[in-house]
Amino acid sequence: MKKKIMVTLPLLAAAATGSAFAQSSVTLFGNVDAAATVVDGHNTWSGLNSGGNKDSYFGLRGVEDLGGGLKAQFWLESGINADTGTGDSGSGVDFKRRATVGLMGNFGEVNLGRDETAAYKAMKRYDVFNHAGIGGSQAWGIGNNDDKRKDNLIGYVSPSFGGVTFSANYAFGETNQSTWKTKAYYDAAVSYDQGPWSASLAAEQQNNVDFGGANIRQRAYAVGTGYDFGSFKLLGAYRQARNTPEGQSTVKSETYTLGASAPVGAAGVVKAAYNHYQYQPVGVATKLKADQLSLGYEHNLSKRTAVYGTYAFLKNKNYDAAVGGMSLEPAALLSDSGKQQGLQVGVRHTF
Amino acid sequence: MKKKIMVTLPLLAAAATGSAFAQSSVTLFGNVDAAATVVDGHNTWSGLNSGGNKDSYFGLRGVEDLGGGLKAQFWLESGINADTGTGDSGSGVDFKRRATVGLMGNFGEVNLGRDETAAYKAMKRYDVFNHAGIGGSQAWGIGNNDDKRKDNLIGYVSPSFGGVTFSANYAFGETNQSTWKTKAYYDAAVSYDQGPWSASLAAEQQNNVDFGGANIRQRAYAVGTGYDFGSFKLLGAYRQARNTPEGQSTVKSETYTLGASAPVGAAGVVKAAYNHYQYQPVGVATKLKADQLSLGYEHNLSKRTAVYGTYAFLKNKNYDAAVGGMSLEPAALLSDSGKQQGLQVGVRHTF
Amino acid sequence: MKKKIMVTLPLLAAAATGSAFAQSSVTLFGNVDAAATVVDGHNTWSGLNSGGNKDSYFGLRGVEDLGGGLKAQFWLESGINADTGTGDSGSGVDFKRRATVGLMGNFGEVNLGRDETAAYKAMKRYDVFNHAGIGGSQAWGIGNNDDKRKDNLIGYVSPSFGGVTFSANYAFGETNQSTWKTKAYYDAAVSYDQGPWSASLAAEQQNNVDFGGANIRQRAYAVGTGYDFGSFKLLGAYRQARNTPEGQSTVKSETYTLGASAPVGAAGVVKAAYNHYQYQPVGVATKLKADQLSLGYEHNLSKRTAVYGTYAFLKNKNYDAAVGGMSLEPAALLSDSGKQQGLQVGVRHTF
Repeated sequence: MKKKIMVTLPLLAAAATGSAFAQSSVTLFGNVDAAATVVDGHNTWSGLNSGGNKDSYFGLRGVEDLGGGLKAQFWLESGINADTGTGDSGSGVDFKRRATVGLMGNFGEVNLGRDETAAYKAMKRYDVFNHAGIGGSQAWGIGNNDDKRKDNLIGYVSPSFGGVTFSANYAFGETNQSTWKTKAYYDAAVSYDQGPWSASLAAEQQNNVDFGGANIRQRAYAVGTGYDFGSFKLLGAYRQARNTPEGQSTVKSETYTLGASAPVGAAGVVKAAYNHYQYQPVGVATKLKADQLSLGYEHNLSKRTAVYGTYAFLKNKNYDAAVGGMSLEPAALLSDSGKQQGLQVGVRHTF
Repeated sequence: MKKKIMVTLPLLAAAATGSAFAQSSVTLFGNVDAAATVVDGHNTWSGLNSGGNKDSYFGLRGVEDLGGGLKAQFWLESGINADTGTGDSGSGVDFKRRATVGLMGNFGEVNLGRDETAAYKAMKRYDVFNHAGIGGSQAWGIGNNDDKRKDNLIGYVSPSFGGVTFSANYAFGETNQSTWKTKAYYDAAVSYDQGPWSASLAAEQQNNVDFGGANIRQRAYAVGTGYDFGSFKLLGAYRQARNTPEGQSTVKSETYTLGASAPVGAAGVVKAAYNHYQYQPVGVATKLKADQLSLGYEHNLSKRTAVYGTYAFLKNKNYDAAVGGMSLEPAALLSDSGKQQGLQVGVRHTF
Repeated sequence: MKKKIMVTLPLLAAAATGSAFAQSSVTLFGNVDAAATVVDGHNTWSGLNSGGNKDSYFGLRGVEDLGGGLKAQFWLESGINADTGTGDSGSGVDFKRRATVGLMGNFGEVNLGRDETAAYKAMKRYDVFNHAGIGGSQAWGIGNNDDKRKDNLIGYVSPSFGGVTFSANYAFGETNQSTWKTKAYYDAAVSYDQGPWSASLAAEQQNNVDFGGANIRQRAYAVGTGYDFGSFKLLGAYRQARNTPEGQSTVKSETYTLGASAPVGAAGVVKAAYNHYQYQPVGVATKLKADQLSLGYEHNLSKRTAVYGTYAFLKNKNYDAAVGGMSLEPAALLSDSGKQQGLQVGVRHTF
């Protein structure tokens, strides 16, 4: 930790002379989070998981001031498995959490590349467990229409108009078939932030998705809101993902999320969440229902470092082998018709 | 973008005291370039591409001053797909654009590892479209002998002797067979730079390359030149790749490249290029001929950031299924006997 | 090497104002080492290798001072093949050399993630050839029980008690079977450092390892010691790896390592090592014996950069096809019953 020497000469020159450096920077950033996990119930499991409190990742990003209110930015961000050292795909590191280049100005922000959907970006703040670990909401993960991120996006984020921001993405349906124009993905979200109150609304659509030979139209809607009462926060969200195979009726999957968090002392936060899931895949008659209850405590050792513990309980109802059951994430945990409860104790460090 | 804190203590100490830090640095660098692309013609396609104007990549490199005119350097550079976030192999990130360690001094530069061939390094400046995007020359890409980069190199770059520089690589033919000495790759290039004029000459050879059971000797030659008239630049290049299967006659693939660029106003550059290709693979009687015409405009928002648009047209002649046709890159575009025209509009940000 | 601009604004502000920045840093670090290699004997080979003197890698790490003697740290480190640019798995880059997050204080250090075993960390200093290149000891590499690093660790390193430090790891046996509690890996090491003398002792165990259907208990023990006489250093180590298939008798593999190094002039170091190996895999009656003799010279151009040459000789005895023979690393070199000798000349640059 001692003998490292880094950073280019131009910086040193600038630091020495105090010249105007503000317009250009590259930032190395990331989060490393690992947690010991024990799951009991019909399927027992123990292990070390990455991202018990928040996904693990690292990245590079930078902003360049182009003058006249215009800025350029790039963002490269890779998921990592802190328990095994791989990228979050399970093999090498890549920038599939985000890889964008874009321009920002009074008009808002335009980015090209791979990024979170506008829908996920607007809604993710309504899960007190950050969609991570055994306590996290699986609203993005129970069925189809479930990509948190999309390739080949052109994305727009508006400036704030009195607390209202708008964002939308168009993702090319990259094919060379005559159908290419009809396979695009697009989404939009509106968010409102005013003092202690926030709310978001999002919609997504993709036509002509192949699924086992069937041609499916996928749509998803989500709504969320939160209020900070000072001594505690309340959050609620709902997401509905709809699959309509050509010539058949629509099946839908739904997630209801309720959460609360409250500071405890100078450094602590207690969190609680309840998720109710209903999942029906295309071509299956049964609908799976599941309930997840999560309780957590975070102890912040600094703004960047926390130790935490999470307890979660999950129960599948109407289990059917054709549907499969849900389980406490990580995915390594098996699904089943029964109940599971889990405990996760870990450390998170953001840099 | 706000709360990041980085860089090691030694730097801060140095920045504070103004001590001699110049001899050691690590630089994070890269380019993120993404472009919306539409291709029309016999095969239509639309999508987002990485590197419409210049390949996307990121890397780490550093130089250490060893005293007495001697320096050590390392260079690790990874291609990236800015549209999907993967490495340019399509999966994880690796340093296959460059991974070298070496020494520099009055004698020139010696590097070990993976790098661009001397031939590609010398010739790449003669394509105004940077061998990237739908407008880029495919001189390295139409047949065999087409690696822009090689593993296992020992490379040498001379200092400039009155504008003349010489470079050469030897790449081990790594085998444990009795033939190992005969499978090496080697190349050499000579470049001349004098005021507005430059010229380069390159040759490559690899013996005993396996190709479908045949034992092939591969050779390639290239020559290029450019002249900057101030109000515009002219560039021209020619490359010939020769395959000689043992006991058979040589087949060759050729690329003729002509290009011009001119500044427009304070920030703009217009570019035009014409490539003529002739490609004949080993064991096939027909020779494919193709013509590519490229027109482009770059608007530089700063030295590091540009928006750009490229139009390109490509036509295959003498199409034969055994040869295959060429297409406007990216590779996702299908080849065919017909014509294609494409439009690419994007943003490039270098850091 | 000239136009790069990096490092975030907060740093610059801090550098300018001299504010207390010591508590937070991210360090980019690495080693790039490549060597031309020729191996003669029954299997000849020539090529460029990565890590002839020391493994090639790069990484990010950081420490945050949390106050009250407590610190948080993260460490992400990826192996690389400097000859081909891939990660050391042969494909993309990942952080399988180390990916940890942890806390440090008066109590020592606790880390979660993937890391070197306590055994390897304690013992690796007893090979003058750094377990790398054709000269390196293959004590971790001749049989089973050979992982230098483990996933899913909870690791502890004690502070020094009068020169004595203790370290231990527990790695979850991640399964959902009823046997999960019995598949964990654990190890421990004790080291003593006092002036010129050091010694280390390590033990490892993992039960219920699957091996071709057999259920094996794996244990390994190692001991090493070194003394620096000033004009030269002496090092010695022994490692024994034991495999006990359920209901069968134990087979064991052993490595004896002896080494010496001595400074030569202001910048040179000569090194010599002898390794004796005995390897018997589970289910095979024969035991392979092999001897390896290594001689090397390192010339340090600075603290961070060296050129080096290594000569190594290896001879297999009692060769049996069911066991396989050993060879001079890299793995690309074939094994055989005969003798091999190799020469490796390279450059190493640490940043």
